[in-house]
Amino acid sequence: MTEEARLKVAMAEIVGSVESTLKGLLPIGEGPEARLCEAMAYSTLDGGKRLRPFLAVQTARLFDVPDPQSLRAGAAIELMHCYSLVHDDLPTMDNDDLRRGKPTNHIKFDEATAILTGDALQALAFEVLADPATHPDGTVRATLVAALASAAGARGMVGGQMYDLAAEAATEPFDLEQITQLQRMKTGRLFDISCQAGAILGQASPAERQVLADYTKALGLAFQIADDILDEIGDAKQTGKPVGKDAAAGKATFISHLGLETARERAKILSLQASEALECFGIRAEFLKAAAQFIVNRRS
Amino acid sequence: MTEEARLKVAMAEIVGSVESTLKGLLPIGEGPEARLCEAMAYSTLDGGKRLRPFLAVQTARLFDVPDPQSLRAGAAIELMHCYSLVHDDLPTMDNDDLRRGKPTNHIKFDEATAILTGDALQALAFEVLADPATHPDGTVRATLVAALASAAGARGMVGGQMYDLAAEAATEPFDLEQITQLQRMKTGRLFDISCQAGAILGQASPAERQVLADYTKALGLAFQIADDILDEIGDAKQTGKPVGKDAAAGKATFISHLGLETARERAKILSLQASEALECFGIRAEFLKAAAQFIVNRRS
Repeated sequence: MTEEARLKVAMAEIVGSVESTLKGLLPIGEGPEARLCEAMAYSTLDGGKRLRPFLAVQTARLFDVPDPQSLRAGAAIELMHCYSLVHDDLPTMDNDDLRRGKPTNHIKFDEATAILTGDALQALAFEVLADPATHPDGTVRATLVAALASAAGARGMVGGQMYDLAAEAATEPFDLEQITQLQRMKTGRLFDISCQAGAILGQASPAERQVLADYTKALGLAFQIADDILDEIGDAKQTGKPVGKDAAAGKATFISHLGLETARERAKILSLQASEALECFGIRAEFLKAAAQFIVNRRS
Repeated sequence: MTEEARLKVAMAEIVGSVESTLKGLLPIGEGPEARLCEAMAYSTLDGGKRLRPFLAVQTARLFDVPDPQSLRAGAAIELMHCYSLVHDDLPTMDNDDLRRGKPTNHIKFDEATAILTGDALQALAFEVLADPATHPDGTVRATLVAALASAAGARGMVGGQMYDLAAEAATEPFDLEQITQLQRMKTGRLFDISCQAGAILGQASPAERQVLADYTKALGLAFQIADDILDEIGDAKQTGKPVGKDAAAGKATFISHLGLETARERAKILSLQASEALECFGIRAEFLKAAAQFIVNRRS
């Protein structure tokens, strides 16, 4: 098998494991909250590449952490990611009707349900991390919670969405530094916590955690540039979302600043930097390295 | 001093300590997220009776937990409570313009900011609990997180809000059992976790935790009945919110089922039951007992 083929098999395996992990974690409601539980499952199951859980599980394997633990941590991060998508899609935010080729949560259900879906998914993410099934050591669990909360909060993911709304409302397009900062907060922090979660479970050394931080920093930026490229020239059938939306909204992107070719080059260099950061782990990090390549070559 | 006067002094003391604790916990933003941080402070500081932190601190004192620990746990629960108010007030939810006598978050800022304010406050609540400053033992911190996440999630507070929206949309008014269940989820669980947080910090016995659960079960219901009474006959200047809203919306309440006098009686009985549950703690629980009385006699 080629390296790409092997990565695809490994990713497909995680997609399956994450799906069954999430199914076991999602609540079932009896009264009027049954609709809420249905909406939570709708925006969580059967979708996405599960990149964040993939990073968590692969990183955890570097430190011989059993998969059931890292799958729970990865699933918690995925719940957080899914909640952010549900809220970002709301009419007062990005106002998107389509997500992963399906009607968005507020279209399928309603706005109030979509807001509550996100709220409940966030609470569930922390409940999963704090559960003894995630790790026998309470300090490890509390460290996971603190790291995810920081990554998701006002100076992380949610602050990044605020940044994004400001970018849309701004009279002057954001410069490259601002776009980079926006990306670091909005999507970068969650990529970082994905790898860090594996390292926390494995009680990795500070040096090992730094190496992983270098990897996700390059990976996250490469991912966003690739996302901008897909938004510009992707195939709506494959990406599952409308194409050219950012450009139509006059929003500054990596492409509007760098141009398509330079953006492509930049993404490739970042992908290489990400791989190089993991040299110290040797062959054991092969899938993490391959994922950095995959991220810039993907079509959806 | 009368018992009531002593309670007021004790409550005022907690209001002050919670305010300074929250000020120390709220983030300060530099870029576009500065507006988010401002909105978080707007809906968190300078408001409310801080009943939940009061319960946390008073319960923790039963087990000789240092106040700085229980104030952090109480502040985390207050952050959760404040986030729920910001989201509940949104146009697609209860559509309220006034909260604690001030414009609600989405009126003062905008809807997108209000949604993100709630999201970031929820993340912050968990970040505070998971921080070693809350308790040196990681297992205690993880237990706090798990308990708050469960209380706040789909089968707790958020599920209760879903229940509430269903009550408004229902063609048949909810019966007494349904209203009671709604209250238990929407507000009861957060009262319960407030006392349980104090007990978790104090590593209380299962029997002690059960006693506290009995207390908050009665207290929470008494609180909600008193709330319905205030909604019916309260003074908008004192409550800081419009009066008669539930009745005007044709919403079933404890009063629409029981009538005003029976509701008052029921609240008093529940308040007594709450006090009696704490007999085993003797005089040390005096403020918790007094709080149960205060809750049914309050005017705002």
